[in-house]
Order: sequence, then C-alpha cells, then structure tokens
Amino acid sequence: MPDILHRVGINAKAAKVYQALVTIGGLRHWWTIETKGITQKGGVIDFGFCRMKVREAKPGKWVHWECVQGPVEWQGTEVTFRLVPKQGQTFILFKHAGWKVPVEFMHHCSTKWAVFLLSLRDWVERGEGRPAPYDLKIHLGN
Amino acid sequence: MPDILHRVGINAKAAKVYQALVTIGGLRHWWTIETKGITQKGGVIDFGFCRMKVREAKPGKWVHWECVQGPVEWQGTEVTFRLVPKQGQTFILFKHAGWKVPVEFMHHCSTKWAVFLLSLRDWVERGEGRPAPYDLKIHLGN
Repeated sequence: MPDILHRVGINAKAAKVYQALVTIGGLRHWWTIETKGITQKGGVIDFGFCRMKVREAKPGKWVHWECVQGPVEWQGTEVTFRLVPKQGQTFILFKHAGWKVPVEFMHHCSTKWAVFLLSLRDWVERGEGRPAPYDLKIHLGN
Repeated sequence: MPDILHRVGINAKAAKVYQALVTIGGLRHWWTIETKGITQKGGVIDFGFCRMKVREAKPGKWVHWECVQGPVEWQGTEVTFRLVPKQGQTFILFKHAGWKVPVEFMHHCSTKWAVFLLSLRDWVERGEGRPAPYDLKIHLGN
C-alpha cells in the first residue's frame, strides 16, 4: 500500500519538537486550531475533521497515531512522526501509511502534509505556525 | 514500489501551466535556474544535479520525464505532471515513480517536490517562483 513520506529539519532539540506533537497547545499552533482531547498514549485527539488515537508516544523519539474517525480514505490509516537528531537539528521523518489506493485525495493530502510540517517547523523555530484555517492554501477554494 | 504523489491547483489555463513545464524559460523560474537542454519529446533536459529525458509531452495534458542521470536513487525513476482543468483552475497531479526503497532521501524529496510545485504555482499565477538555489529550505544547511 502506498505511503505519504516527508522529512523536515528543525533547528531545535528533539524534546522541544516532541512537545509540539504531544500537547494540545502545540498541535493547535501548527495543524488545526480546533484541536482538543487526550494526547497521552491510549487517548484520542480530536482535530475537528478527524480523530486520532495515540498508539505510541515515546518522549523525544516518536509519536504514532491511528485515524479512528475522519475522511473515509483516512479511516484506519496510521501517522508516524519519528524524531532523529543529527547535523545540529532534529529531523522529523513523517509517514502517513495504510492508504488503500493512491486516489487524487492522497495526492492532495501529501502536499498538504508538507505544508503542515513546514508550519510545525516554523512554529517550533519562530513561534509562527499556520494551523488551519490559517494554513497555506494549495488550490483555489480550499 | 513507493511513489511520491502531490496535487496543487493553479489559477490559470492548462495551456499556460503546460508552458512552465515544457520551456527552458519556464523551468528555470520554478525548479532550478541552471536548466538547459531540449524540452521536446525525446530530448534531454539538464537540471544541473540531474538530467531528464522527455518521454511524453502532450500539450495541455501531461509531461512525462525519465531520469537518465542524477542521484543514484533517482536513476530510472519517472516524473509525471498530469494537468486536470476543473473547479475554475488547473490541477497538477504529480507523480515521481519508480523508487526502489523508501529511503530517507525519498522522504526529503517528497517534501521538496511539494515546495517546488508551490513555486511552480506562484510562478504561473504571480511571476514569483523560487527556483533553486533560491528555494524554500526544509532543513538547516540545505
């Protein structure tokens, strides 16, 4: 099954990047301002348009979610953020796995994840995230 | 084999988007300023760090390249830009196919393609592309 893969490097310690992934306050500043819920392992985070169950959250190392509600193509898919400190920064190796078919919506989501990961970078480095609905648009009428 | 997929919508006619993909002047304004070579079917375009053979170029519809020289992970891979007019804009459905394994460099290139497709969008819509080496950086030391 095809996966969405991305990588960005963030000029911050892994512990700081991790906080942006495992706190409601962090997630609200780079993905969607509507975020609420429980970010600890076993909890469910509500992002408005989807809900993610937290499968794993290992401090400074990785975060692993499973989509338990949302767009039909997302249901049962898994999102992983792996943090890798090297070259004086923290790289995020991102994977959104479990897509059944490479539909047009998957193309859209791939580009959109890149935009949000750069929003995450800008939030952690400069306090300037662009969470939805203030996110960079990638087509008209978005 | 895993593919890199993306989609962006551009506020322009397909014919105009197509010109940005099949002319040296266009390619130089959104991907890399070093571009030279032959952009017609059968030609080879030299982007400096890689060379792409033009396998297909159907006006207003699609462009299909094969990497004939470049980073080892790119050799033999294929890049397709499919243009789809709908909802008052031209969508580009992008695919970089033929990766043998989802190495960390593939994660990097996926995010980088998103950045360059948005550079293409900004070039076509507003004359404001960001080709390498003026491209948006996605990690330190890039």
